[in-house]
Amino acid sequence: MANPILIELTRGPLVESWHRGAVAISSPSGTLALQLGDVERPVYPRSAVKALQALPLVESGAADHFGFGAPEIALACGSHAGTERHAGLAASMLERAGLRPDALGCGAHPPLAVSAASALIAAGCEPTQLHNNCSGKHAGMLATAVHLNEPIAGYWEPTHPVQERIRQALADVSGAPLGPDVLGIDGCSVPNWAMPLKLLARTFARLVTGEGLAPPRRQAIARILEACWEQPELVAGKGRADTVVMRAFPGQVFMKTGAEGVYCGGFPELKLGFALKIDDGAKRAAAGAAMALIERFFPAARGLMPYGPIKTWRGAEVGAIRSAAVFEDALAALKV
Amino acid sequence: MANPILIELTRGPLVESWHRGAVAISSPSGTLALQLGDVERPVYPRSAVKALQALPLVESGAADHFGFGAPEIALACGSHAGTERHAGLAASMLERAGLRPDALGCGAHPPLAVSAASALIAAGCEPTQLHNNCSGKHAGMLATAVHLNEPIAGYWEPTHPVQERIRQALADVSGAPLGPDVLGIDGCSVPNWAMPLKLLARTFARLVTGEGLAPPRRQAIARILEACWEQPELVAGKGRADTVVMRAFPGQVFMKTGAEGVYCGGFPELKLGFALKIDDGAKRAAAGAAMALIERFFPAARGLMPYGPIKTWRGAEVGAIRSAAVFEDALAALKV
Repeated sequence: MANPILIELTRGPLVESWHRGAVAISSPSGTLALQLGDVERPVYPRSAVKALQALPLVESGAADHFGFGAPEIALACGSHAGTERHAGLAASMLERAGLRPDALGCGAHPPLAVSAASALIAAGCEPTQLHNNCSGKHAGMLATAVHLNEPIAGYWEPTHPVQERIRQALADVSGAPLGPDVLGIDGCSVPNWAMPLKLLARTFARLVTGEGLAPPRRQAIARILEACWEQPELVAGKGRADTVVMRAFPGQVFMKTGAEGVYCGGFPELKLGFALKIDDGAKRAAAGAAMALIERFFPAARGLMPYGPIKTWRGAEVGAIRSAAVFEDALAALKV
Repeated sequence: MANPILIELTRGPLVESWHRGAVAISSPSGTLALQLGDVERPVYPRSAVKALQALPLVESGAADHFGFGAPEIALACGSHAGTERHAGLAASMLERAGLRPDALGCGAHPPLAVSAASALIAAGCEPTQLHNNCSGKHAGMLATAVHLNEPIAGYWEPTHPVQERIRQALADVSGAPLGPDVLGIDGCSVPNWAMPLKLLARTFARLVTGEGLAPPRRQAIARILEACWEQPELVAGKGRADTVVMRAFPGQVFMKTGAEGVYCGGFPELKLGFALKIDDGAKRAAAGAAMALIERFFPAARGLMPYGPIKTWRGAEVGAIRSAAVFEDALAALKV
C-alpha cells in the first residue's frame, strides 16, 4: 500500500508532481487524533528531535555549569542558518567548555542561509564546522562530555556515553525500543534512531505537555522549549518556518524540521503532538504539509509561510503548491 | 494505482526515502520495450525537449543565416551551467541576430554551476538573463523570429509564431495532440506541452533514428543531435550527466534532463527512445533512474555518474542511493 498524496504541485491545467507521505497526530497517552498512511514504519527523525538530543545538556547540569541560557540552548536545538551570529554563538559555547572549534565532529558545509553563504564567498572564506547547521547541537554534546569528565574523542560514536545518554532519553520518552536495527548515522556523524511516526507524535505530545514525564525531565524539557520560543531565530533563521511560526505562536506551537522530509511538533494547549514524513524526502512538501497541519489548529498562521505559487523566473504565477484532497479532508474532519 | 518505486535511499539498516515514477522505452513505431507505471498520463517534458524546440531554428534557415554551428545549436538545446563560456556564447548569438541581452524573456537566475555562481558573487555581480540555463534556447527562438521578420516582442507567448511553430513540430513528431488542455508555462516563460511518456519515448526513438520523419526534418534533427554530441559541455556543463555520458558515447546515447524529475533520450543503434518522470520531481531520482536505464544498454557507462553513496559532511559512507528491485528486475528482463 502506497502512502497517500499529501502535497501536489500544479502547472497550468495539470498536476505536475506530487508527494506522498504519512502523518500522525497523537495525545500524550498515544491516542491518535489522526493517522494517514503508514505510521508504524520506523522513520529517522533526523534533526526533528534536536530538542530531545539536548536533554542531557540540561539534565546533566552542563548548561548551568557553563552559563548557557536560552540562546545557547535554542542553538543546541537548532538547524541554524550559519550566519555570523549562529556560528559565533557555537564558538562561544565551545570556548566556555574549554574547547576550540576543531573539537567539533559535525563536518563543514556552506551556511544554509544564502545571504550568509554569499557573504563567506565574497570574503574569500571557506565554510567551517561552525557554519554547519548542527554546530550548536554538537557544541552542547561536547559541553556535556566536558562537564561529566568524559573523553571528547569520538563523542559522535553510538557507543560514546554522550550518545548512549541521548539514546536512553529518546527511548524513555518515546517508549520505542531503539536498538541497532533502527540505527542510522546522520549527516553530521552522530547516531539517529528510527521510530514509528505514531510514537514520534506521542513523544512530541509528551514534550509539550510534560505528561508521562518524571518531574526533573519535565522541567528540563520545559526549559528547552521555552528557550526555543524565546530565541526562535537561533533554532532556524530569518524567514524559515520554525523561526517564523514559533515567533508568532510562542508557548502554543513547537515545531522542528528534519532532513529527508520530516516535521515534528506539538501544541501544548491542545495536548497534541504531530509527526510527518514525506516518502521522497522533499523539504518543500514537508514544510507545506506541516503548515497545512498547523493552520488547521491555528488559522492565524495562514499566510505566515506561503508555499507556492509556482512562478517563472520573471515572477509570473504559473502553478500552485497545495495540500492534496485526502489530506485536506482528513484535517477538516478532525474532531479536535 | 501508485507508480512503482524506481529509486530508494538507504541509511544504516533502513530505507529512508524512495521515489516513485513511470518509465517508457519505445521503438520509432511505438512498440514499447518497457513500460513501468502510468505511461499514458500527460507529463510536461520541460527542458527534456529542448532539441525539439530547436528544430525551427535549423529548419527555418536561421541557424545558417546567422552562422550558428555546432556550439550555438548545442547551446540552444542546453540547460547550461551559466559559466562565462555559456553566457558569452548566448550573448554572441543574440548579437549576431542584431539583438541585445535584454531582448531575452527567460528571466535571471544564478548559474547552475556552483563555481560560476560563486565567481559572480565574488566579483560582486548579479546574475543576468544570460546566466539562465535556458538563455541559449531563448537566443535561438529570438534569432528565428528575426530571420523570419516576425516581431520579437512577446516571442514567449503561446500565440506567437515562434511558439506555434514549436508546438506544431512537437505535435508532428510525437503524434500527440497538443492543445490548451495540456499547456503549461515553463520556468523560463515559454509554453510547455504535456504528453504521455509512451509518446515521449516514441518521439525520442524517432529523433535518434530519423524513422517516420520527412527527409528535411530528418536532416535538421540529425544536425541538432550531432551538435550536442560534438559539444556536450554546452548542453549541460562540467560533471553533469548529459555532458559526461554524451561525451563518452557520441552517436550512441542522446539524453536530456528536464525539471521536475524528467529524463528523455535515445539510442540510435538500438533504435530505441526512452522517457521517464519521477512523481515527486526529484532530480536525484531522475538522474539515478536515467543512469540505471542507460547502463542496462551500455554497461561501460557504469561508474561515469555515481549517484550515491550517501555520505556525512566528513565523508563517511552511511547509506546508498540505488535502483529499486522492481525497476532493476524490469531492466534485467528486457529482451533487447
